Amino acid sequence: MNLAPAGLGQLIAMRRRLLSTLADHPQRIAIDADLVQLFRSWFNGGFLVLRQIDWRTSPLVLERLIQYEAVHQMQGWRDLRRRLEADRRCYALFHPSLPDEPLIFIEVALTRGMSAKVQSLLDPDSVVVDPRLADCATFYSISNCQDGLRGVPFGNSLINQAVDELRRAFPRLRTFATLSPVPGFTQWLATTTASDGGDAISAELAALLARLTAGDVPDHTIMSARLQPELSRLCAYYLLHAKRGQAPLDPVARFHLANGARLERLNWLGDTSEEGIRRSFGLSVNYVYRRGELERNHQAYARSNKISASSEIEALAATRQ
Amino acid sequence: MNLAPAGLGQLIAMRRRLLSTLADHPQRIAIDADLVQLFRSWFNGGFLVLRQIDWRTSPLVLERLIQYEAVHQMQGWRDLRRRLEADRRCYALFHPSLPDEPLIFIEVALTRGMSAKVQSLLDPDSVVVDPRLADCATFYSISNCQDGLRGVPFGNSLINQAVDELRRAFPRLRTFATLSPVPGFTQWLATTTASDGGDAISAELAALLARLTAGDVPDHTIMSARLQPELSRLCAYYLLHAKRGQAPLDPVARFHLANGARLERLNWLGDTSEEGIRRSFGLSVNYVYRRGELERNHQAYARSNKISASSEIEALAATRQ
Amino acid sequence: MNLAPAGLGQLIAMRRRLLSTLADHPQRIAIDADLVQLFRSWFNGGFLVLRQIDWRTSPLVLERLIQYEAVHQMQGWRDLRRRLEADRRCYALFHPSLPDEPLIFIEVALTRGMSAKVQSLLDPDSVVVDPRLADCATFYSISNCQDGLRGVPFGNSLINQAVDELRRAFPRLRTFATLSPVPGFTQWLATTTASDGGDAISAELAALLARLTAGDVPDHTIMSARLQPELSRLCAYYLLHAKRGQAPLDPVARFHLANGARLERLNWLGDTSEEGIRRSFGLSVNYVYRRGELERNHQAYARSNKISASSEIEALAATRQ
Amino acid sequence: MNLAPAGLGQLIAMRRRLLSTLADHPQRIAIDADLVQLFRSWFNGGFLVLRQIDWRTSPLVLERLIQYEAVHQMQGWRDLRRRLEADRRCYALFHPSLPDEPLIFIEVALTRGMSAKVQSLLDPDSVVVDPRLADCATFYSISNCQDGLRGVPFGNSLINQAVDELRRAFPRLRTFATLSPVPGFTQWLATTTASDGGDAISAELAALLARLTAGDVPDHTIMSARLQPELSRLCAYYLLHAKRGQAPLDPVARFHLANGARLERLNWLGDTSEEGIRRSFGLSVNYVYRRGELERNHQAYARSNKISASSEIEALAATRQ
Repeated sequence: MNLAPAGLGQLIAMRRRLLSTLADHPQRIAIDADLVQLFRSWFNGGFLVLRQIDWRTSPLVLERLIQYEAVHQMQGWRDLRRRLEADRRCYALFHPSLPDEPLIFIEVALTRGMSAKVQSLLDPDSVVVDPRLADCATFYSISNCQDGLRGVPFGNSLINQAVDELRRAFPRLRTFATLSPVPGFTQWLATTTASDGGDAISAELAALLARLTAGDVPDHTIMSARLQPELSRLCAYYLLHAKRGQAPLDPVARFHLANGARLERLNWLGDTSEEGIRRSFGLSVNYVYRRGELERNHQAYARSNKISASSEIEALAATRQ
Repeated sequence: MNLAPAGLGQLIAMRRRLLSTLADHPQRIAIDADLVQLFRSWFNGGFLVLRQIDWRTSPLVLERLIQYEAVHQMQGWRDLRRRLEADRRCYALFHPSLPDEPLIFIEVALTRGMSAKVQSLLDPDSVVVDPRLADCATFYSISNCQDGLRGVPFGNSLINQAVDELRRAFPRLRTFATLSPVPGFTQWLATTTASDGGDAISAELAALLARLTAGDVPDHTIMSARLQPELSRLCAYYLLHAKRGQAPLDPVARFHLANGARLERLNWLGDTSEEGIRRSFGLSVNYVYRRGELERNHQAYARSNKISASSEIEALAATRQ
Repeated sequence: MNLAPAGLGQLIAMRRRLLSTLADHPQRIAIDADLVQLFRSWFNGGFLVLRQIDWRTSPLVLERLIQYEAVHQMQGWRDLRRRLEADRRCYALFHPSLPDEPLIFIEVALTRGMSAKVQSLLDPDSVVVDPRLADCATFYSISNCQDGLRGVPFGNSLINQAVDELRRAFPRLRTFATLSPVPGFTQWLATTTASDGGDAISAELAALLARLTAGDVPDHTIMSARLQPELSRLCAYYLLHAKRGQAPLDPVARFHLANGARLERLNWLGDTSEEGIRRSFGLSVNYVYRRGELERNHQAYARSNKISASSEIEALAATRQ
Repeated sequence: MNLAPAGLGQLIAMRRRLLSTLADHPQRIAIDADLVQLFRSWFNGGFLVLRQIDWRTSPLVLERLIQYEAVHQMQGWRDLRRRLEADRRCYALFHPSLPDEPLIFIEVALTRGMSAKVQSLLDPDSVVVDPRLADCATFYSISNCQDGLRGVPFGNSLINQAVDELRRAFPRLRTFATLSPVPGFTQWLATTTASDGGDAISAELAALLARLTAGDVPDHTIMSARLQPELSRLCAYYLLHAKRGQAPLDPVARFHLANGARLERLNWLGDTSEEGIRRSFGLSVNYVYRRGELERNHQAYARSNKISASSEIEALAATRQ
């Protein structure tokens, strides 16, 4: 099945097409399940290779990063180059039989203190600083590359290996944290408010929510400081208490909490891109990966969906009512 | 299970130990079957990498060839070096996660005409000739390296890839043939003769067979020319008609015939080592791989165990009675 | 002097700065002569390494091509990528101590027939064709990268090695030719005409020459077909008879003729860029590298500045008066 | 001159042959001087590449170490392998155009304390120890490989780079010292004693010296403890006061002292090989490379041939009369 040199890539492409037909052909789910099981065996972490991506990496690989970046899009080579400068790091996982095809990649900023605002990290004209002065590694983007490998988990392994590499290269790093989107917040608020009759939120927020829901995304300068306390409380509540089954409703929260990270801080105007405003009123979140507590958090989450959160966020959520 | 970098090697070692305990613990056969299935998935031909082995290859790999060579043993670096000179080729298959561990390797001599005698190929003092003058690639040894991977087939894929590489590098090659042992001949003759009452063979051969059976292997100079016609007939008969179930009794014959090769020629005094005398009275065999007939032979063998053999060998076998 | 790892690059940079001060400090010419002698020893052809440049090459090197391309400028990564597609080749020479710094590079188009018009080769949207169908390798650009190595000859060695590589990779190639600019034509015509009183050229050409001399470069659509015979005759005469000492006045002609190439063909509207109109009224030239006559042409040129030219060009030049 | 790929190697071989004819053809000294100047330019330290040699290194290179080892010969692959184990290091300098030809190499043992006896380092059956426990790097052999490059200095650069590499890899190393032969001691003692009439040495030593001079080298067990004080005094005197012109007579002393090392310790029975007994009655010497004093020692030696030595050795030398 996999004998031809290009076989593996073709199988992945085949599954990508298969996935797009599952809705119309539910009987194909069994084939899909077989393929996932095969891929989980073949793309076992023990076979994957971590490679640092930098300005020496072949353009064959680099152009795929531009194409696959799903969290904070790149406009081209200039955006990419800034993300590969001395105070940034990028790591990707590869399968040895697909040396030009990243499976997943992560982008890191080496910073003093935990970053709160992603736009200042992305700006191609921002000043490059000496990475040896950094005390924090901020993971600001993580993107899966292969639709055809959906359901094969890579993310946790990539983060762990990236942390190991960074620790080795920069012994002065103290904090490993993400700067993450809150993709489901606006939509949850719209749904909740609709069923509440809308009494629970201020008129200003209700007006803004209506615009977003209608697809009319204003510039971030409209986010008045008056909205900050209300939105922060609501977002903290969303992250801690909104559920899908027993697990958090927010998919990014689910991923990092299952890895054992801790929900640390909300950032007002943390992502002021159109997409950031649309999905979460510009709020972003830091999840912290602390070596000493990862295993404990992971276990508690796996057993009972217990969320590890800072007291600041818990306090915010508690004031919602 | 396979997450640690050394994980794959450890699993293979685990199975090697498991295999040695199966006789005493038959209930472990189910575990073994699971491992084989896993290994067949992981060591799928599409993932394996063919590498040419030569005098540039790391000693970490080279010393394993000395260790694993199972057909014609090497006494050390001097023997090895001759097998890597300009008129020899060596290819091995590797898994990308085990870059220093060959899985199987094959040794080839580039010759004028199909080689009949293996000792002249192995002699470390033999003259190195210009490989561009060769018209035949003689495959004189193929060895599996990993006991723990028993049951995972590598040989056919290795031969096919080696033939492709050789064709590319030496367009003047016309014949691709093995120079192979006949490992089961002496033992079969002993068994057959015992049940026949020994009437069927000459007194001289009966005496020699008795010595071999008793573990007393004489020097090859004892092989008198008088024995040649009788042994050749018997060996041709053995290769064509001795069976294990429907398939040939000889394991090397089973392997090459299943690949689609053709049983071409018997070589008197073809392997005069102690081992060669012991297992087959010094006889060796050439199997020929002809591109045009491989698929047809393979199908005929797979369907009905039909053996493709030269008319010369068929004639020899027919004269046995 | 050269002990530090970065030493060689620093010496080259030092000479680049030195060159820019020679006019004001003529006594530094002796230092410069010493440096050139040192560089000629160090950058001896035997030490240099030819590397093919393609879309796998590190961006560290690729961005230097964009920067150093001197004949047909690139606007960015899109232009570059077209020049590295399957029907193009790019080769560069490197010194082993400066692995990221190309010294000189050459760009080649694999075409059916000898190319006449460079714009169709450069167009980033042009269709990529199967290079195995090509019968001609057209060298359309060659650029030195290091000002600090002026006077160290690389070009002839690069062309020879590129031809060898191309011959090996594409045995069906029959013609190796350049598509070259004629950098000194307009200026020579202006000088000559001024001293002639301008009687020798048509009024239309005189008007155009005046515009170009005044720095007003019209679009190529102004080049009326009426001008073609006159300009072709003049350009052929310029290439064959305009001299600096005993050698051709045109620097590109000097380079290829000294290498043993033959002046083959004039191409009307061969380079319609602003620069092409400005320097040679859009005319371009093919020089052909024929293996069988390179040495003879080179010797004749070295001995007596004899120019090897096609009868077509000689006939054109002869009709000038 | 150097254009063919193999050109550099051929030039080196040419000079090797030239050197062997200089005695008979003194007029060739001028050619030789030109070649040395050329080689000094080409083999400038800035162009050379340090590579660690280990059990992964190509046998093409490894077999040259066996061949070129000049201080403590290797009997074959087994000896070599011990010198490449985890508690040993080997570094060589290469020119990029001769990637398979080491120019010079150095062998290092990672030890606790400064080694006194070389045989225990060379023993192929000696136990491999954890190199992270070592506090001393003992340089026990340094060999030039290319006769044709005689007069081009590599040694000091190699030692400096090796020390840098070792410091990086093993931050716990405190001492960098050689374990060196004293090649000229026996011969000096024979010459000196002959002119003295032999009164100055004991009868036992005189008898031993006579045997060595006659080419009859006894086993090291003959070295009675009675001889130790006398030989140690004489050897210390030889190292400090025997001269060729203004510089030490001993060539190994000249090399390390010119590099800025310090003559630290004499080792009784430090080299008990036949060669060690023959050249220096089995005595060996440690020279220590101390970062803080290398430059000062080098300057003092270069200015006035001042020898940096331990008080122990100075005291020994002072008691000679």
